[in-house]
Amino acid sequence: MPTESKNPEALDHVKANEAEAPSSRLARFSADEPLELDSGVQLAPWQIAYETYGTLNADKSNAILVCHALTGDQYVASTNPVTGKPGWWELMVGPGKPIDTNHYFVVCANVLGGCLGTTGPASINVETGAPYGLDLPVITIRDMVRAQARLVDFLGIDTLFTVIGGSMGGMQVLQWAASYPERVFAAVPIAASARHTSQNIAFHEVGRQAIMADPNWCGGGYIGEGVRPTKGLAVARMAAHVTYMSDESLHQKFGRNLQDRDRLTFGFDADFQIESYLRHQGMTFVDRFDANSYLYVTRAMDYFDLAHEFGGSLPAAFAGTKTRFCVMSFTSDWLFPTSESRSVVKALNAAAANVSFVEIESDRGHDSFLLDVPEMFETIQGFMTGAAHARGIPAPGEAD
Amino acid sequence: MPTESKNPEALDHVKANEAEAPSSRLARFSADEPLELDSGVQLAPWQIAYETYGTLNADKSNAILVCHALTGDQYVASTNPVTGKPGWWELMVGPGKPIDTNHYFVVCANVLGGCLGTTGPASINVETGAPYGLDLPVITIRDMVRAQARLVDFLGIDTLFTVIGGSMGGMQVLQWAASYPERVFAAVPIAASARHTSQNIAFHEVGRQAIMADPNWCGGGYIGEGVRPTKGLAVARMAAHVTYMSDESLHQKFGRNLQDRDRLTFGFDADFQIESYLRHQGMTFVDRFDANSYLYVTRAMDYFDLAHEFGGSLPAAFAGTKTRFCVMSFTSDWLFPTSESRSVVKALNAAAANVSFVEIESDRGHDSFLLDVPEMFETIQGFMTGAAHARGIPAPGEAD
Repeated sequence: MPTESKNPEALDHVKANEAEAPSSRLARFSADEPLELDSGVQLAPWQIAYETYGTLNADKSNAILVCHALTGDQYVASTNPVTGKPGWWELMVGPGKPIDTNHYFVVCANVLGGCLGTTGPASINVETGAPYGLDLPVITIRDMVRAQARLVDFLGIDTLFTVIGGSMGGMQVLQWAASYPERVFAAVPIAASARHTSQNIAFHEVGRQAIMADPNWCGGGYIGEGVRPTKGLAVARMAAHVTYMSDESLHQKFGRNLQDRDRLTFGFDADFQIESYLRHQGMTFVDRFDANSYLYVTRAMDYFDLAHEFGGSLPAAFAGTKTRFCVMSFTSDWLFPTSESRSVVKALNAAAANVSFVEIESDRGHDSFLLDVPEMFETIQGFMTGAAHARGIPAPGEAD
Repeated sequence: MPTESKNPEALDHVKANEAEAPSSRLARFSADEPLELDSGVQLAPWQIAYETYGTLNADKSNAILVCHALTGDQYVASTNPVTGKPGWWELMVGPGKPIDTNHYFVVCANVLGGCLGTTGPASINVETGAPYGLDLPVITIRDMVRAQARLVDFLGIDTLFTVIGGSMGGMQVLQWAASYPERVFAAVPIAASARHTSQNIAFHEVGRQAIMADPNWCGGGYIGEGVRPTKGLAVARMAAHVTYMSDESLHQKFGRNLQDRDRLTFGFDADFQIESYLRHQGMTFVDRFDANSYLYVTRAMDYFDLAHEFGGSLPAAFAGTKTRFCVMSFTSDWLFPTSESRSVVKALNAAAANVSFVEIESDRGHDSFLLDVPEMFETIQGFMTGAAHARGIPAPGEAD
């Protein structure tokens, strides 16, 4: 039996070892409860860190699993202990929010390969007593979902009312629907795709090479050396961050505005606001994220190709599904463009699935799913109400 | 008087010091022939390395200046002595090509700030006897064009028949038309813009930070230290290279194809062809380009904002112009999208200029201008014939 712990003391130590002893809830699986990985490795012991919000109802039919994106974490609607910042999706999840925690029981877990308490490259390898580093097997989106399924088992939940997530979170949603169709009543993949494209792999590879080029990366063994590849990781984050915004949003937010100066300096300082902003993004990121985790989680995204798992047929991934889908994309998202969501919708239609598809007008690029985009909230609220009725549970605001 | 030299011996030494003693033609300007820079600095001595193709006619009316892009050079239609590869635009320039060197006299110079013979950060600063490194003032597109104008003076040419270039080359074309309208009979800016956008600056900043993060950069003083920031420069090139291609061209060329293997390795090797391709691009680039030059030339592009020079009015940059323009963009170019070219065309229209505009269907992204795109060649050939007639010189194939 896995055991559970909550480590409130860690909250006092902002930079405590969140990879090993997270501030959040934690389910530990022992040496005889391995997690089978796509690489063939039986990972054990292993652990999964998670947060919950709201109350599970008597027949356990109101549970929603939120899947996070590349650099997200389990703190979807509560303070991140490392940064001290609010949850990353408090616009979406919380009391009275579209995913109403007064009504639903929300679970969010740190992904496998992450660095905030779920087993990842910064976790201690019990065989060596040292952090895994690159000795951790490469993991996949399916591995992440397998780990989440074990957590859902542990919580005693049979069927999730909804699985929802954006970007890599949306990949997990699709994998959930394909791997465990009977356990997913409704699925909401946002700004996602069923496979990582060549361009996406390319941008990830740039980030990985930036990390690996940093001599402080030490072949992945930097923790043992007492150093960190902060410069390489910052460059990786900067490169990625540009892809999360649209040309239009960058133009509106920064244009060619200068940073705290009247004229060009004819030097290599951050003359432009966009430069200063990117440098800030890079610098703050390294305080909260592990470089090897960045390698592992980007790799998992690159490896994702749901059709490939089903003999090259994406409709086959959803054959006979009874899950209700709400697929969502954003007009200005060029990293996970609408065409990718359309491919998913086409496959769902071919599988005769119950699917609604909404392309939302937004000029804020891929990051739109994290931002205040009212049409997204309204769409999700509407979809969830319909799903609640279909499931036979009251929607928020309705009598129990 | 500037002096001219040709250094044929350097051709024997592929890795000779091309920054100081290029294999190409070279015009040297002495201490009392300074180049005035936008930074306010009077640069002297300085030099400009160039190649010529074809023969200047008696009344010097058939000269075409080709302006190169960020990592281009003067070897537009002849072998690059460092790489041993053919000229970078041999599809466009040469005997019987759209820019027919049997007919026109073509000049192409290495840009100021470059590393193949024109004064740049790898050149020797006579005041210290050591390479400039970051002591070279930051230069601008206008500075590059000023240097070219000095070369054109030196060659005894009053009016250029055509100035043509793609990407940063197109920026120079626009600057030429604005700074020296009476010296440019026809102008062909391809895949260019009149200002660098926030997104473009952002991608450049990522590249610069990658270089500066490399400890072998040594604050710009790596030549003196006997090292080179090859890893950082390779990452910068990889990041940039992704932006030169379209999502569609990456998909067609690489998709999710694996590199020399049947299945995923569950490791961080280059599993995918796109990864292997990008790594190769990065590795070969560092053999031919100087890291500090990369900083200077990207900075020049970032600083480019032609309207700003004319009180914020782009039409004012072209007021009263008699130059004939052919503006060209590519449908899949997301780095210098058609909207940027349209802004230029609008400004030219507002200035009542003679302008034709062609958006060319191509799925190969920004790099299209360097590739075999027949519609581009036909358009340029047609435009040049018309311009030749207007100029009163025979077009290729016509009797003299």
